[in-house]
Amino acid sequence: MREIKRFKNIRELAYLHARMKGFIHRTPVITSASFNDLTKTKTFFKCENFQKMGAFKMRGAISALLNLTDEQKQRGVATHSSGNFAQAVALSARLLGVKAVIVMPKNAPEVKKDAVRGYGGEIVECASGLESRVQSLDEVVSASGAEKLHPSNQREVIEGNSTAVMELLEDVPDLDVVITPVGGGGLLAGTALAAKQLKPDIQIHAGEPFAVDDAYRSIKSGVIQPPTNKSTVADGLKTCLGDVNFPLILEYVDSIIRVTEDEIISAMKWIWERLKIVIEASAAVPVAAVLREKELFTGKRIGIILSGGNVELDKLPFKEPISGKRR
Amino acid sequence: MREIKRFKNIRELAYLHARMKGFIHRTPVITSASFNDLTKTKTFFKCENFQKMGAFKMRGAISALLNLTDEQKQRGVATHSSGNFAQAVALSARLLGVKAVIVMPKNAPEVKKDAVRGYGGEIVECASGLESRVQSLDEVVSASGAEKLHPSNQREVIEGNSTAVMELLEDVPDLDVVITPVGGGGLLAGTALAAKQLKPDIQIHAGEPFAVDDAYRSIKSGVIQPPTNKSTVADGLKTCLGDVNFPLILEYVDSIIRVTEDEIISAMKWIWERLKIVIEASAAVPVAAVLREKELFTGKRIGIILSGGNVELDKLPFKEPISGKRR
Repeated sequence: MREIKRFKNIRELAYLHARMKGFIHRTPVITSASFNDLTKTKTFFKCENFQKMGAFKMRGAISALLNLTDEQKQRGVATHSSGNFAQAVALSARLLGVKAVIVMPKNAPEVKKDAVRGYGGEIVECASGLESRVQSLDEVVSASGAEKLHPSNQREVIEGNSTAVMELLEDVPDLDVVITPVGGGGLLAGTALAAKQLKPDIQIHAGEPFAVDDAYRSIKSGVIQPPTNKSTVADGLKTCLGDVNFPLILEYVDSIIRVTEDEIISAMKWIWERLKIVIEASAAVPVAAVLREKELFTGKRIGIILSGGNVELDKLPFKEPISGKRR
Repeated sequence: MREIKRFKNIRELAYLHARMKGFIHRTPVITSASFNDLTKTKTFFKCENFQKMGAFKMRGAISALLNLTDEQKQRGVATHSSGNFAQAVALSARLLGVKAVIVMPKNAPEVKKDAVRGYGGEIVECASGLESRVQSLDEVVSASGAEKLHPSNQREVIEGNSTAVMELLEDVPDLDVVITPVGGGGLLAGTALAAKQLKPDIQIHAGEPFAVDDAYRSIKSGVIQPPTNKSTVADGLKTCLGDVNFPLILEYVDSIIRVTEDEIISAMKWIWERLKIVIEASAAVPVAAVLREKELFTGKRIGIILSGGNVELDKLPFKEPISGKRR
């Protein structure tokens, strides 16, 4: 496919990874005997919740920043995001001495704005809604000449995201399957890009909430589907695929497994309780997918990318008492 | 001191550790640049929240079990606990093929009973209150001849607990200070026992909630003080010191730093948010102590034993929105 050929090959990705290494954490890969027993798998969790700023988004952001010319760096970068990409761009820009403007809706949680400011990002507030965000970002860009960065539908961002699975396969070369969450598609596409070059017979799956199953429907139909605008506890996954990442996903992804809100919360709780690590709901989606489709994965060696760990601790979804049965 | 000489020396502790190794996890030691910046220290967190069954108590329990004769093992073990020690004894006993009876109050949370049953422990329910627990345990022991195990005031348990700081000092030999929480005193005494033999000039501190500051008052007065019976979010620390561990604590502990409930919750939240790991409130107490007494620790290399990670996720203390200031 012509669109896919534009992406870096594995040798170029390895060089990118080497350039990124000083700016990202090499995150640990952990295992759980209980999870393996429960699922009859050998599962390896790649802990991007321990990544700088708490999510894999750091990889795509630093990759995009490293790709800029000196002239572009002087003009700075801009993006619109109220989520992890906002923090990732702010921190990456600071690490490289570049100015970052983040367009965020006025009603975004203060904690997220504080985080961006804490990393040295400048916030431009806009009305909520995608249209207003896009317009505000365009205004920033035309006023400053800043380079626009996209959280998931940009080649350099996708390539940067690839480095998570590259590390995972370096640590655990003989995986049968890799599973990520899918929202905007940047992690899934990046994972497929590197994993399929490193190990062509590897299976690539993604977990997606039923509530926002546009990626599932996009693969089924072969055409990018619009978002549902429904709500999900995995709020990082509300965005839809883009024309840059979709060709990779269409070509390489074996299946998208949809999961319910209850399954996401239950998987998140399981990971917190048993692995004693903090993951955000989006990161629990591929875990929920493995728990839901156990038969599909029996006996397999699975890599799950735990995409991030940024949560608001005063707004956790654990309302119900823990169920009587200890799994 | 005669009482102290009864404990294993460092060579014997090393042999104990070697015997225990197949039954416990070697837990990781992690660092946080943010925490170091915040406190002007180099702090090393020993993650006993990642220990088997989720707490350091596994060490003391397996040590006590390994110490039994074959005959004692056949008669089984018994303890009273509604907390981590219950699970630790149940799991240790299962690993060694020994029967374990755990006396638990009828009103103990179902999740804790389930955990004990999940590890194969037999539960004997009693009325709440220490008196009823002790009586029920005595009945179990006289009926079965089971060996009674104490969560914190037993030599073998204290020695087993020592192995956490032994691993920590193996990984980070040049610590100036080690800090643990103090409740029953078993972890603090065990930590002092090994650390002072390995590095006589090391400082040993403990964090304790103001609400249940009997260890603080015991050291001040030189006599074990009764518990306050007040409530604290660090519910694992409600018990008071015992005659077996007190001599070690009196001899070797430099200070006990008391912290407020708000400080504990805030420290717990900080660790969850920034380190992305789940620790229980008791484990946050020494963290709170370092944050409270910053001047005492400036420039020091500190080891903090994060004692456990067993929490009820539907009963978290994070009520308030995250404060505006990102630390």
